[in-house]
Amino acid sequence: MKRVWNFSAGPAVLPEEVLKIAADQMLNYENSGMSVMEMSHRSKAYDRIIKEAEADLRTLMNIPDNYKVLFLQGGGHLQFSMVPLNLMKNKVADYIHTGEWTKKAIKEAQKYVKVNKIASSEDKDFTYVPDLSNLEIDDDADYVYICQNNTIRGTKITKLPNTKGKDLVSDMSSNILSEPVDVSKFALIFAGAQKNIGPAGTTIVIIREDLLTDDLPSYCPTMLSYKIHADKDSLYNTPPTYGIYICGLVFKHLLANGGVEAMYKKNLEKANLLYNYLDISKLFKGTVEKKDRSLMNVTFVTESEEINAQFIKEATEAGLVNLKGHRSVGGMRASIYNAMPTEGVVALVEFMREFERKVIGWK
Amino acid sequence: MKRVWNFSAGPAVLPEEVLKIAADQMLNYENSGMSVMEMSHRSKAYDRIIKEAEADLRTLMNIPDNYKVLFLQGGGHLQFSMVPLNLMKNKVADYIHTGEWTKKAIKEAQKYVKVNKIASSEDKDFTYVPDLSNLEIDDDADYVYICQNNTIRGTKITKLPNTKGKDLVSDMSSNILSEPVDVSKFALIFAGAQKNIGPAGTTIVIIREDLLTDDLPSYCPTMLSYKIHADKDSLYNTPPTYGIYICGLVFKHLLANGGVEAMYKKNLEKANLLYNYLDISKLFKGTVEKKDRSLMNVTFVTESEEINAQFIKEATEAGLVNLKGHRSVGGMRASIYNAMPTEGVVALVEFMREFERKVIGWK
Repeated sequence: MKRVWNFSAGPAVLPEEVLKIAADQMLNYENSGMSVMEMSHRSKAYDRIIKEAEADLRTLMNIPDNYKVLFLQGGGHLQFSMVPLNLMKNKVADYIHTGEWTKKAIKEAQKYVKVNKIASSEDKDFTYVPDLSNLEIDDDADYVYICQNNTIRGTKITKLPNTKGKDLVSDMSSNILSEPVDVSKFALIFAGAQKNIGPAGTTIVIIREDLLTDDLPSYCPTMLSYKIHADKDSLYNTPPTYGIYICGLVFKHLLANGGVEAMYKKNLEKANLLYNYLDISKLFKGTVEKKDRSLMNVTFVTESEEINAQFIKEATEAGLVNLKGHRSVGGMRASIYNAMPTEGVVALVEFMREFERKVIGWK
Repeated sequence: MKRVWNFSAGPAVLPEEVLKIAADQMLNYENSGMSVMEMSHRSKAYDRIIKEAEADLRTLMNIPDNYKVLFLQGGGHLQFSMVPLNLMKNKVADYIHTGEWTKKAIKEAQKYVKVNKIASSEDKDFTYVPDLSNLEIDDDADYVYICQNNTIRGTKITKLPNTKGKDLVSDMSSNILSEPVDVSKFALIFAGAQKNIGPAGTTIVIIREDLLTDDLPSYCPTMLSYKIHADKDSLYNTPPTYGIYICGLVFKHLLANGGVEAMYKKNLEKANLLYNYLDISKLFKGTVEKKDRSLMNVTFVTESEEINAQFIKEATEAGLVNLKGHRSVGGMRASIYNAMPTEGVVALVEFMREFERKVIGWK
């Protein structure tokens, strides 16, 4: 059986070239006589792997020198705690509420700080992004928090909020490296690797150095201190060594293929293919406001749950898999991260067209 | 270049058969058309992987039904926080102090509970295990804590402490699955996978169900609640999917090779080869008391740092790698986990004999 077109929201498709290198190097990494999985995280060979991964990510995102790059564990969920624990001074934070992930982030932050929901799209089931141009920012806010791309709902914050000088924290789990961003506009960026980068279990944090502090609450676990990890270059404890290696391979793959600018062009092309079809389809329709559409997660429905289910079933049989929407919202979702080739999206649109013809014919 | 004999203390050697399967399945796991790395953690294919990993570990360790098995992140270091956070009621805990890892565990626990060091081998630089037969257990102790195998110092707790009815917590990071244990004697066992099981970034927790509680301090991050992870069968958040898959392959490999009993026999044989030689060598000597010798990490020295360094250098050139002792103690350490074949230990002893002959000849 050949490889399928995998539209999973995460863990998600990886570049085939990267998987081939990983397979080739599995028993013997570059004449080290061992797998990367078997390497001490303090060995010279591994030191080069993690340093190069960091350097390549810095190049890809043009990360300024006054930012630290950390490779951590625990995914977005642990960041929901680490962000308030490490950034709280006045114990007030402003959150922009755009979906399931900010809901979880808010709930966790409320253990530590007073959370102001300064904008929300809950009124319309998170199918849009609120106007963020003139928010009521709390004078005491330690930071303003966004989830830049909402994997579940298929929305994206295209224009960053005006934080009126406050530090901006962004969950970029599902859009990191998908398009150019100006890192200097953020105080802290985090991303679980398992959507647009690599395997689950590696979390990337990009943090402005002045935010690193030892002045944490006495109950804060040592492992949840950004400064501890920064001081030790992500080697305070054993990091997820193999995951970081795969991330590094993905970074090299991106650099060899034109970097983030080229990805952005390709991602626009892929998203347009799908959205343009959705806009003319008589069967399928997109679920979010056009201006707020995600480039990474394209959510859509038909007129009935039965047809949705039939579509997902037939698509799966045709090798177009993981198109089912998140269990909390239903419908369909095509996640088209960097590693999804354009031909995968072309195949999906063709299949949707055929399915539409057939269904319209039934009526 | 062929594969080396890798005596790394962790991340460490893995069974070559497992690496071969992982390489073969990298692009297409069992006709799924995708890598395990690319699979949704909520897919049917992955569900089978994680369920089988748990079932196989239960078989290998004969884990009673009233224990939960969790696959978490964060390694031993995060467990140092999770154990007191989840188990504290009276906010008192008894720790047996046998090395660097219990030192870190104690320091972390002191954030949350009153720690009694009820036994310590610090007086002799952790080169032995204290008598644990009649300890002063605090009437209020929420648990008694041990690190069963001290990776850095090369000691092992052979006879479990008499806890006088209190719950026993064991860090088994470097000895899990190396010999049979009666799980029912423990309240909680944890182990970072990267020594005796699989890749770094996966942490295994085996916890008696009655210890799972929602009654945690209000500041405890949700990700640090055992009950949250237990209630969701380790899928509260995206787990380290690929790491768990590799752990599962290792479990199947162990089952196919006689299970833990067979490993124990092989591990005794390997350790005896090395210790017997150390006991007759005129150049090398073991660093810990014979009765407390680890089966997994064999620490030894020569009479001088120069000869140690020369030995490590020549051994490395001969394909016997990662024999340098932990940076905090120096000397040499041969970690001979389950996946180290007997012939690797034979090769090491032969090389040591030759080196000894040469050095004695110099004098």
